[in-house]
Amino acid sequence: MKHVEGGVCAPQGFTASGVNATIKLTSKKRDCGLILSDRIAEVAGMFTQNILKSPPVIWNQSVCLREAARAVFANSGNANAATGKRGMDDVRTTAQQVGSKLGIEPDQVCILSTGVIGVPLPMDRIAKGVDGCATSLSRDGGPQAAEAIMTTDKTKKERAIEITLGGKPVRIGAIAKGAGMISPNMATMICILTTDAAFAPEVLHSLLFDAVEQSFNRVGIDNDMSTSDTVLILANGASGVPAIGARSKEREEFGEALNQLCKEMALWIVKDGEGVTKVVEIFVRGAQTDDDAKTVARSIGNSMLCKTAFFGQDPNWGRIACAAGYAGVEFDPAELDIWLGDVQVCKGGLGAQYAEEDAAAVMRKPEFTITVNLGDGPGEAIFWTSDLSHDYVSINADYRT
Amino acid sequence: MKHVEGGVCAPQGFTASGVNATIKLTSKKRDCGLILSDRIAEVAGMFTQNILKSPPVIWNQSVCLREAARAVFANSGNANAATGKRGMDDVRTTAQQVGSKLGIEPDQVCILSTGVIGVPLPMDRIAKGVDGCATSLSRDGGPQAAEAIMTTDKTKKERAIEITLGGKPVRIGAIAKGAGMISPNMATMICILTTDAAFAPEVLHSLLFDAVEQSFNRVGIDNDMSTSDTVLILANGASGVPAIGARSKEREEFGEALNQLCKEMALWIVKDGEGVTKVVEIFVRGAQTDDDAKTVARSIGNSMLCKTAFFGQDPNWGRIACAAGYAGVEFDPAELDIWLGDVQVCKGGLGAQYAEEDAAAVMRKPEFTITVNLGDGPGEAIFWTSDLSHDYVSINADYRT
Repeated sequence: MKHVEGGVCAPQGFTASGVNATIKLTSKKRDCGLILSDRIAEVAGMFTQNILKSPPVIWNQSVCLREAARAVFANSGNANAATGKRGMDDVRTTAQQVGSKLGIEPDQVCILSTGVIGVPLPMDRIAKGVDGCATSLSRDGGPQAAEAIMTTDKTKKERAIEITLGGKPVRIGAIAKGAGMISPNMATMICILTTDAAFAPEVLHSLLFDAVEQSFNRVGIDNDMSTSDTVLILANGASGVPAIGARSKEREEFGEALNQLCKEMALWIVKDGEGVTKVVEIFVRGAQTDDDAKTVARSIGNSMLCKTAFFGQDPNWGRIACAAGYAGVEFDPAELDIWLGDVQVCKGGLGAQYAEEDAAAVMRKPEFTITVNLGDGPGEAIFWTSDLSHDYVSINADYRT
Repeated sequence: MKHVEGGVCAPQGFTASGVNATIKLTSKKRDCGLILSDRIAEVAGMFTQNILKSPPVIWNQSVCLREAARAVFANSGNANAATGKRGMDDVRTTAQQVGSKLGIEPDQVCILSTGVIGVPLPMDRIAKGVDGCATSLSRDGGPQAAEAIMTTDKTKKERAIEITLGGKPVRIGAIAKGAGMISPNMATMICILTTDAAFAPEVLHSLLFDAVEQSFNRVGIDNDMSTSDTVLILANGASGVPAIGARSKEREEFGEALNQLCKEMALWIVKDGEGVTKVVEIFVRGAQTDDDAKTVARSIGNSMLCKTAFFGQDPNWGRIACAAGYAGVEFDPAELDIWLGDVQVCKGGLGAQYAEEDAAAVMRKPEFTITVNLGDGPGEAIFWTSDLSHDYVSINADYRT
């Protein structure tokens, strides 16, 4: 497994582009992006669990049910969410425009929108964006598409990896956007994955499900889950490698690579989160089940008091113990151990013997790990979170104004 | 029902006191408080659901099981939580000291501690606090006890009301502390209630349960539930009014007064919360059940994105709709209506026709109501929350340092 250049265009058969269609009005950045596969690709998706699903999410769910896609068109600056029937019409119109420009089926065009909720899409400018993107597709367009999906992201996020299956190179590329509203269940987060591998039926979806569960569903910046969260993967088979079967060694190898790439993208999103100064890995072990461990890790990772303590670089383990305690998971408080980095701060539910300065030194690092042991059960889980800073408040208090 | 002076000493038969025993070291404020009933009082309590219950919580639960109390001793500056066996010994020792000073049974002394977690109680200074409090009890001591339980509270909170039952006056008094870690389930929040009414078996506990459910369990500042949350009520019968029966008119009248007082104290805690500049009442109606309505109200009230929008005075109804959507409650997005004050901002899941300035004007008020209609079901609920401000981050990032 090695990293390669090219983002979503690293796999064979994909081109991409991105233009500024002034969806964001005052911004000089690209806000419409397009990715095209030169042949029909299998497609799978994971979507927000918010019951207010945006029209693009509903559209993409139906594309994924048909399992065939040629292109993904995305815009930032407007989420086309809480826009009702008009929003659904606008998605269909956009897909028809893309289909018409590229000579492909509209039903094979995925549509992604991210940005402000409750405002209809400016369809005249979207049409300009479709035009501009369709005429500028290239094998070098990955970075442009990555820029086009950014909202309050500080950096554009694209990455690709290559593995060898049966002697042949296979690649997976990714672009993502995150920043705000990052939540346990993929809140306002978009990731588009491409690969030139091919798959037997059902395999692609199950691989994506596993990868998302271990990555995007394990990160939190705030507790909010958006109406638009989407992870899509298009697999066009252009590598010429035979279709990967359900119980094959190749499935395992591809799965490992996909998990790794998704984890890298998810962590990148946390690092780039709104006002983030710390990235904290929370490792919970000794729980009765993995699910219990995940619940406790998430409870700590979402605690506003823990997150402000991370920002304040305060080794206040009482807040960590407290958040573990109200997670709703049964454990014996007298078996609770907590480490900040390598420094054990809590032993058997009580303060351990340690030098305050050692614990404080761990928390001054930009990235550190908190380990929580709940007992002697086999369950364990990892969750990644950020701190809660003044900048988070500023960015979110001023978002629209 | 009328408000009267005196706080916890407003009902007959109660005295109180508060002294500075330097538990908080550098603070000049009182940090130990005592409340005494001149006769054995019936006692009931509601406690944190955190499985890391502090030793005082466990102690008080057993006092409440025996249903008899003479006194409440409280300290701030140290929560005596995550202190294990030593913490439990310290509670017992404190109760014995109070019992010995006042000539009452140690098993009839409730003990409350609030402050830093994971540090053993400074028992020499606690002993000084017990001495000082025991020798300064008076009918005027309510405000001193109220001050003694404050942590980062900006104001001390005491209040009392009087009702007439069967021609005789009956009073309920209260002191409370809150400020940080205020959560759906009474996080780091202490309220001590006193009354000179008397009750038939079981009635007092059920009255307290109902009142807490409608008040302290309906407020949120952050999502953290502490190891120490406690609401206690002592009923000494000193008014001479006959014991209130389970299905009596008097139960209803007393219950209404208790609900009102608890609601006033709970709202006071929100207003006085860490860094709070806004108090927002979230009224959800049209849900299938009251529980569904409560879940949606709490989801909005706990959303960091909603709370920063409140701070930013930004009428961003999309965030409110979004938080309703991920609450885990089924409703038809096409029936969603949202009002900020009297201004309808969302109608049938879409943006309503309104003047942005009207909506912004509502949010500039220090207190306002958000009404969310989910459909035509009978379920409704109210939840009170605060904004999330820069000061919240500052206060909690610097708590220990």
